[in-house]
Amino acid sequence: MSASNGVVLVSEVGPRDGLQSIARTMSTQNKCHWIRDLHAAGLREIEVGSFVPASLLPQMADVKEVVQHALSLPGLQVAVLVPNLRGALAAFEAGVHKITLPVSVTEAHSLANVRKTREQVIDELRAIVAVKRERFPTVMVEAGLSVAFGCTLAGRVEEAETLRMSELAAATGVDEVGLSDTSGYAQPRQVYRLFRALQSMLGDRCGGAHFHNTRGQGLANVVAALDAGVTTFDASQGGLGGCPYAPGASGNIVTEDLVFLLESMGYDTGIDLLRMADARASLQAGLVGEPLYGMVPEAGLPKDFRYARECGAL
Amino acid sequence: MSASNGVVLVSEVGPRDGLQSIARTMSTQNKCHWIRDLHAAGLREIEVGSFVPASLLPQMADVKEVVQHALSLPGLQVAVLVPNLRGALAAFEAGVHKITLPVSVTEAHSLANVRKTREQVIDELRAIVAVKRERFPTVMVEAGLSVAFGCTLAGRVEEAETLRMSELAAATGVDEVGLSDTSGYAQPRQVYRLFRALQSMLGDRCGGAHFHNTRGQGLANVVAALDAGVTTFDASQGGLGGCPYAPGASGNIVTEDLVFLLESMGYDTGIDLLRMADARASLQAGLVGEPLYGMVPEAGLPKDFRYARECGAL
Repeated sequence: MSASNGVVLVSEVGPRDGLQSIARTMSTQNKCHWIRDLHAAGLREIEVGSFVPASLLPQMADVKEVVQHALSLPGLQVAVLVPNLRGALAAFEAGVHKITLPVSVTEAHSLANVRKTREQVIDELRAIVAVKRERFPTVMVEAGLSVAFGCTLAGRVEEAETLRMSELAAATGVDEVGLSDTSGYAQPRQVYRLFRALQSMLGDRCGGAHFHNTRGQGLANVVAALDAGVTTFDASQGGLGGCPYAPGASGNIVTEDLVFLLESMGYDTGIDLLRMADARASLQAGLVGEPLYGMVPEAGLPKDFRYARECGAL
Repeated sequence: MSASNGVVLVSEVGPRDGLQSIARTMSTQNKCHWIRDLHAAGLREIEVGSFVPASLLPQMADVKEVVQHALSLPGLQVAVLVPNLRGALAAFEAGVHKITLPVSVTEAHSLANVRKTREQVIDELRAIVAVKRERFPTVMVEAGLSVAFGCTLAGRVEEAETLRMSELAAATGVDEVGLSDTSGYAQPRQVYRLFRALQSMLGDRCGGAHFHNTRGQGLANVVAALDAGVTTFDASQGGLGGCPYAPGASGNIVTEDLVFLLESMGYDTGIDLLRMADARASLQAGLVGEPLYGMVPEAGLPKDFRYARECGAL
């Protein structure tokens, strides 16, 4: 969890969080091209899809084929989201490297999102960890705490409640517990406090930050999370996701904008922003006409821009 | 310069920085309506225009009338930008409360922006301060250091150079020296270091931060500036300004998004975001069809949102 060596992992979640949030379905071939280009740009962890029933999310019906393609890319940590044990089993069998199960901090969100109480989700997580330990010990299992900073349904979320749910999730034996700002409620001071507390509680099992940019606060929250020592950040190329009736307002933080922030601050992401433009072209080719967001892709790099890796130590 | 009492001043620069950056000219009546609504929403400092020749910036030709209107609004600090002594004299005569003169940190930007060397601009500033002291002692004079974090023309700007120019500007006797990220080059660590150094050098004469959102880093930089103790931030409703060929990419940070950040973090801005929507409607009415930016205006306030003033101390 320490950024002292100046390396930060950007985990691309566009192929999952982005694509599942829009009505259209990208073709399997286009998904594979996009993921290949993201890998070529330096991404080393990509959440490539979710193992959910195709009847619920037809956008993810081809997740197995996409996983197979992603597994062919050298050095790539292939991650997926699963809603339950059944999805986890399918993901394990498919050979993924990492599984994230969302755990809602509020009962209201849990019931709305997966039609299970939080207790039932924790039970599911425990069962997933048992399978992992018995049959897939090298696969990393992460609990992603949804609505950890506030909830569209329940409103304000007490920090103590987020920490209590984090502890319950950690107690199942997962490898990591990350915090998600599912709908743009987080503010920097809260982000700092919660990640510091989570680190105290979980040490190296404190996971990454997943911020949506619903109210434009995503990168501000990243700065606070960095100050707290977080070294893994989810982001989505094109900022896809969220609410289609609030254009540009609700997706994940945009990968290019995050990479620019991190590199400017001296954190090495290993990502090449010019090659990210190729990936962006593939994304756009797979979703012709779909609005993509991002300030750095619009404005370009500043004169004399240098990557952290070109500047020596922090 | 301390935010220990939790109060932050948001200085609205839309009527100047926003309106001078777009080709269209808002009518005097619309400007006055907009400024009236901004004041009604709680803004206590507004940069209402600039005193420049109408031949250069026809959008600002009515600045005197706009100033007269703004002066009628109780408790409002009426600020303007001036490029030189002649503009400052006109501004003094018009009765403004505050004058900002931009001082470029790089010679290239100075020559391009005002066709003067930096030395000539510092001379101008000295002359303005002399007039102020003799005839308008209550008017605040600020030097706004342009391209303080990087320059589209000169590229990288050394921090020592920004501090050297700040010192030269301060030596003229101005009341405050603020730092501007004119074209989206700033990053949070640099922002923190520069404002801390400026405070050490100037104490209470260290002014505010003026961030453009060219690469989406504006609010991330605000967090760093807050950590450094900055208590005044410029912002522009609708994020107007900058480069018209990079939509949404180049204006100032958006006032509503900034206010939301500050209030969420526990800083009292005195601004009412619902009333800001009225001001936004006036702005849009004055520039029908002009794209306005802002995530909070799109997404609305989160459930259970509370202003800092409703929550007690930080």
